[in-house]
Amino acid sequence: MNSGNPSALRHLLDPIRSDLVSVEEEIARMLSTRSDALRTLLEHVSRFAGKRLRPALTLLAGRMFGRVDGEHYRVGAIVELIHTATLVHDDILDESSMRRRVETINNKVGNETAVLLGDYIFATCFKEAALLEDRFASRYLSEIVAIVCRGEILQVHHRNDFEMTEEVYFRIIEEKTAALYAAALRCGAHIAHASEEQGLALASFGTKIGSAFQIIDDILDLTGEESAVGKSLGTDIEKAKMTLPLMRLRDAAGMADASQLQEALTRGKADARRELVPILEKYGAIQSARETAFQLVDEARQLLDGLPDVPERAYLAHIADYVLSRDR
Amino acid sequence: MNSGNPSALRHLLDPIRSDLVSVEEEIARMLSTRSDALRTLLEHVSRFAGKRLRPALTLLAGRMFGRVDGEHYRVGAIVELIHTATLVHDDILDESSMRRRVETINNKVGNETAVLLGDYIFATCFKEAALLEDRFASRYLSEIVAIVCRGEILQVHHRNDFEMTEEVYFRIIEEKTAALYAAALRCGAHIAHASEEQGLALASFGTKIGSAFQIIDDILDLTGEESAVGKSLGTDIEKAKMTLPLMRLRDAAGMADASQLQEALTRGKADARRELVPILEKYGAIQSARETAFQLVDEARQLLDGLPDVPERAYLAHIADYVLSRDR
Repeated sequence: MNSGNPSALRHLLDPIRSDLVSVEEEIARMLSTRSDALRTLLEHVSRFAGKRLRPALTLLAGRMFGRVDGEHYRVGAIVELIHTATLVHDDILDESSMRRRVETINNKVGNETAVLLGDYIFATCFKEAALLEDRFASRYLSEIVAIVCRGEILQVHHRNDFEMTEEVYFRIIEEKTAALYAAALRCGAHIAHASEEQGLALASFGTKIGSAFQIIDDILDLTGEESAVGKSLGTDIEKAKMTLPLMRLRDAAGMADASQLQEALTRGKADARRELVPILEKYGAIQSARETAFQLVDEARQLLDGLPDVPERAYLAHIADYVLSRDR
Repeated sequence: MNSGNPSALRHLLDPIRSDLVSVEEEIARMLSTRSDALRTLLEHVSRFAGKRLRPALTLLAGRMFGRVDGEHYRVGAIVELIHTATLVHDDILDESSMRRRVETINNKVGNETAVLLGDYIFATCFKEAALLEDRFASRYLSEIVAIVCRGEILQVHHRNDFEMTEEVYFRIIEEKTAALYAAALRCGAHIAHASEEQGLALASFGTKIGSAFQIIDDILDLTGEESAVGKSLGTDIEKAKMTLPLMRLRDAAGMADASQLQEALTRGKADARRELVPILEKYGAIQSARETAFQLVDEARQLLDGLPDVPERAYLAHIADYVLSRDR
């Protein structure tokens, strides 16, 4: 997540502010430890705290079908901490030095501690998931990390694969990013006794807005300003990862421009993104990827039509729009 | 684990051979995947397969109190896979190139994939733990990984800490190594309806033999032959980790010899272990550490006295002795 348009989201989350405070309390409890070595590291990690979009989805899904309670707060805290653990490990993979304007763990204390700290936070999530009363949520959350990792491994597997298909791209982003959105929503709905059909509709909504979120992230990695986005950019080119805007460029560009893209990926320098911007614009590749993200959000909003007409439904629709507004 | 005296253990495990086959089937099922990218990696990891000491403990604890069944096989597979995941990540931390005579994942496909693959295997363990019928085992196993990570983080925290106390050393090895032995035994006993007191006695047995195991491992890291042990050695000195034999040397040695040790740790070259062997012998540091391991095994065997006098009790006593026999 990045900080594009943060005040807009903060405003969107006002109706669930007090519930989010309870989620924060659960996060603090889960990360509390008597180990000095760990405490210092965990305090640093909590400085990465984002806007708590994933717990917000759990809370809104719960409120759509009833009252939210401690079980929702715990699920919200777990999905946020799963996300946090993946960030700690992702920063190692991407060799990032900055995350939400704070030094990354790998940069601060080395890769070794970052590996172990990510493991510790994952383990904490699983321990807490095992303690949930709702066995559906307990099992669902335990499965989701394997899916996230599978998506990331697929992405690493396709590095330097200039011919990667969009089918593979969408599988990667659904697994590595969108699956956690879907889980946050579906577990929130389940605990509030929504029907299976309603839970599946919300999961599908989550998959679509999570995928849109990732597409926008991939665009920002090419066109964003590090000072505005608050994290290292250009990492996809550096790591020779094909993303949607690059695939749209590849498919639209003539021989000469496509080979400039291929050459940039092979060279693997983050700065190459500057050279690519003119040809990305020339072929409308950014615009084409952005349109796909808009379409996904449109489909997501349509899924809400079949759900109860309560204020939370409108809030979820606004969050879907917010995902796109990050692209500024 | 290493391959010291493997035929001895193989013989010890003969009485539970068919149960171990069932554990292997569970491991294969848990690691089965439709992802080609993952399958190749997981097949490589299964070449690290050791002697399955941890699942053997689960099976023996179960048989001590009744019949073992599918739940035992699943718990045995989970403890083995937790161990496997920690090996994949440990090899990154230690920059090891060889593990059980097979190339490590980090050496073969890079640190990034090794981080993700370890995460995936951990996640698979948690997913399977969440599916167990026995909620005690489910929750215990979900907690154990956090404890293992906490021990490893404490160890990294005390790198280059020449003054580290033995109290800290024992906390590190109990958490990073022995806790999983204790869990394997306690869960096996619980599923077979042992009393809490019996479960705790077995857990304590596991803590003691697991600690002895780690002490012998730390001795082998200094004195072993890579060709015999089958993995990279000298990593503790390379990573400036104080281990029991080094602490015994520090405390017994005069100024000149202690500063040679400190200098070797600061320099951080694996080969320095060769230079240290003469002074380790001069001060009886290896012997002193080995005696502590023997004493732990002795205490462990005494704990068995209060447990049912069945063949499995004798098998566990033999396994306790085996832990020491690795030191050859």
